[in-house]
Amino acid sequence: MKHTEHLYEKTISSQTIYEGKVVKLKVDEVLLPNGKTAKREIVNHQGAVAVMALTDEGKLIAVRQFRKPLEREIVELPAGKLEPGEEPLACAIRELKEETGYEAESFTHLSSFYTSPGFADELLHLYLATGLRKGEAQLDEDEFVDVVELTLEEAQELHRLGEIRDAKTVVALYAWESRKLHGQK
Amino acid sequence: MKHTEHLYEKTISSQTIYEGKVVKLKVDEVLLPNGKTAKREIVNHQGAVAVMALTDEGKLIAVRQFRKPLEREIVELPAGKLEPGEEPLACAIRELKEETGYEAESFTHLSSFYTSPGFADELLHLYLATGLRKGEAQLDEDEFVDVVELTLEEAQELHRLGEIRDAKTVVALYAWESRKLHGQK
Repeated sequence: MKHTEHLYEKTISSQTIYEGKVVKLKVDEVLLPNGKTAKREIVNHQGAVAVMALTDEGKLIAVRQFRKPLEREIVELPAGKLEPGEEPLACAIRELKEETGYEAESFTHLSSFYTSPGFADELLHLYLATGLRKGEAQLDEDEFVDVVELTLEEAQELHRLGEIRDAKTVVALYAWESRKLHGQK
Repeated sequence: MKHTEHLYEKTISSQTIYEGKVVKLKVDEVLLPNGKTAKREIVNHQGAVAVMALTDEGKLIAVRQFRKPLEREIVELPAGKLEPGEEPLACAIRELKEETGYEAESFTHLSSFYTSPGFADELLHLYLATGLRKGEAQLDEDEFVDVVELTLEEAQELHRLGEIRDAKTVVALYAWESRKLHGQK
């Protein structure tokens, strides 16, 4: 990856603060482009996938779950962390099945984006899934979700009400709206 | 905030691992709905704003910057952290001016979303800014950015190339596309 000299921050030292199951936290000292130094707090994460699964009737398969960092429930796309060495597409297929029971004929990659590049390296891969067939969910033992089906209008109303309010699901809502305005499902 | 019993995770204990300038890390032990316990790694963040600033000619004002967690440059919306007690709109006005030099006649709230609710409580407030007037940027002393102006097509090409690849900017691109499909700027 190219570095533009007047933007680049060179690492002087790096201190690992914590290594957990989900995140690793480190604090780097960096040399700024102006010759001064600064600290950067950095959260490492293995990356994740999310699935925008649309039924043949044009409904979104979403999950309501309690999110401990927020101390509240929100409604989100089915999603999950990449296992070590796992391909994003394989993870998307797995997480959709585990959380909702659905399998899909077709997965299309829509976007991959960093969720919060100021302090974290989590990269999230977003897929569209269509041609859905319902089966049995197989949740992880520490995972509890309710599956809900939403029209675009219902999802947009939950967005206005603040029950849909996470980045990946908001990306999906706007992408879904654009698709529909283009005459797609 | 209501809690659905079969989804709720009650805190048993909470341990603070690190308190930095940008993030705080804690590990909570929780009681799961099935009576078992689990650990939750939680990153606290004060929240942030991002601004989708569109010129009268329909161009997006974006910034190219080096992101230490990614060890690379990406092109993003102007954005920044909330100061303690700061209103999101005041922060949006301040960050747009500081990073790009632009002031705007009109700010419209588009969405507020959690960037990564699985492990972090960062809430990002996204505003549309129009009626732009160019002035002088006033960057923080540890902040280095290049300002760029992009048409929607140019921004979508950067998204395909992976130079635009953070959640807030991807939200803005799809929202911008929907606006244009609705006949707006």
